Amino acid sequence: MSRRTIFFVSDQTGVTAETLGHSLLTQFDGEDFNQVTLPFIDTVDKADAAVRQINAVAQDEDTRPIIFSTIVQDDLRERFLPASGLLLDFFETFLNPLERELHVKSNHTIGKAHGLGDARQYDQRIEATNFALDNDDGARIRDYEKADIILIGVSRSGKTPTCLYLALSYGVFAANYPLSEDEFESGTLPSVLEKYRKKLYGLTIGANRLQQIRKERRPLGRYASMQQVSYEIRSAEALFRRYQVSYIDTTESSIEEIASTILNSTGVERRNRP
Amino acid sequence: MSRRTIFFVSDQTGVTAETLGHSLLTQFDGEDFNQVTLPFIDTVDKADAAVRQINAVAQDEDTRPIIFSTIVQDDLRERFLPASGLLLDFFETFLNPLERELHVKSNHTIGKAHGLGDARQYDQRIEATNFALDNDDGARIRDYEKADIILIGVSRSGKTPTCLYLALSYGVFAANYPLSEDEFESGTLPSVLEKYRKKLYGLTIGANRLQQIRKERRPLGRYASMQQVSYEIRSAEALFRRYQVSYIDTTESSIEEIASTILNSTGVERRNRP
Repeated sequence: MSRRTIFFVSDQTGVTAETLGHSLLTQFDGEDFNQVTLPFIDTVDKADAAVRQINAVAQDEDTRPIIFSTIVQDDLRERFLPASGLLLDFFETFLNPLERELHVKSNHTIGKAHGLGDARQYDQRIEATNFALDNDDGARIRDYEKADIILIGVSRSGKTPTCLYLALSYGVFAANYPLSEDEFESGTLPSVLEKYRKKLYGLTIGANRLQQIRKERRPLGRYASMQQVSYEIRSAEALFRRYQVSYIDTTESSIEEIASTILNSTGVERRNRP
Repeated sequence: MSRRTIFFVSDQTGVTAETLGHSLLTQFDGEDFNQVTLPFIDTVDKADAAVRQINAVAQDEDTRPIIFSTIVQDDLRERFLPASGLLLDFFETFLNPLERELHVKSNHTIGKAHGLGDARQYDQRIEATNFALDNDDGARIRDYEKADIILIGVSRSGKTPTCLYLALSYGVFAANYPLSEDEFESGTLPSVLEKYRKKLYGLTIGANRLQQIRKERRPLGRYASMQQVSYEIRSAEALFRRYQVSYIDTTESSIEEIASTILNSTGVERRNRP
């Protein structure tokens, strides 16, 4: 099977082209793709240089490249029409039906998505990221009033990456608190968490997976032993049930899936969209 | 002007639908959109419930909703055809041309993008996130051998969110080191950084913006004074020039723009695509 080169072409960061292209390509399992992002193509000269790069690849390889484009300016977009490749143009395809529906012409201007855009909304993402860092791992508990969500679970169940993702992508204020011996032995939540019971969301994880993750961090000792890992998971899940805290098993889930499930089930508002 | 409801419908997380829709909607400045994500629509029953929700909104509001769909299974997708709204169907539109080009049928299966997918690649994202946290703010300098990039800059120039974004989105190992009095006074980089000079990338920021950000953290004292802020920025930029470290001004840039610029200019490989 021959290798196919994929170009993500954008007059901006390329994040949208990558996300959309990647979603489509995952539907073609087993194909071999070489992926190249060409961001900030915001002048005719840069567009022509990009087209030369694409054409050079087309000549070198058996198959022509596939080009995912989110270039929005008409004069730049047109430069790609003669490129040697299959051009899939996201804006070209969907802007016209949207313009008809909304009865307005779109701006056709560069640098809207993933730019600073609404500065207030942007500052909230950064603030939410700082909040996640400050309130990671039970580090600070006096800020829970400000939290949208407080994730609880055993060590290495996925709390920190989920909080950071919720902050960076959605501007959601997510704290997390690690359940530990105190809670397992008493079978009760600390009063600081009881007070914010409505904000709690639990993460659990399969014992084998947790053991594998913990072993990478600390291979020796009780921390990664199967006995300890199983005990912690059992105790945590008993707490979730006792306090009627909704929870999700992260074993087979990506961060995106965990985040999306939590937002969907709690109804917490997204302050930003990816 | 009437408010328009936008639905992001997905048999999975909804991240792709949100990204697509958001990119397009930012082209229609000044319109008032109410955005609703309906993820995990993976059964006919859930699809029918989603359609009822859309139709109810269509009846309540003056204008019909717009539906961005990334539902991939044909039998689920079909349920949305009679919905009262403008249906913009991502997979329907782009899978056919891709199938023709690649001479294969796509899987048409749920849950590919933003799922666990390639487990090794996924673990790398988590590992990269842990690396960013462990190597934040100069906390640990013995890991620089493993870093793809080491960001340097004054306090609050955007190093931490950029490192976390590079890790979560791209699986890139990014450390960061805060420049401080030691470096400003001596005009030299610490030897630990000199050794990894090729991995360094600088962040700078406008004085007014930095003052504003610092004031929110620590309103009083020298830290947020204009004199101190200007002095630090001047000194940092002098260091970047002296050591020929590429750098970017983050004042008017989003995290996505900063990350994309750094990857583009250093050629560091993306281990994952958003």
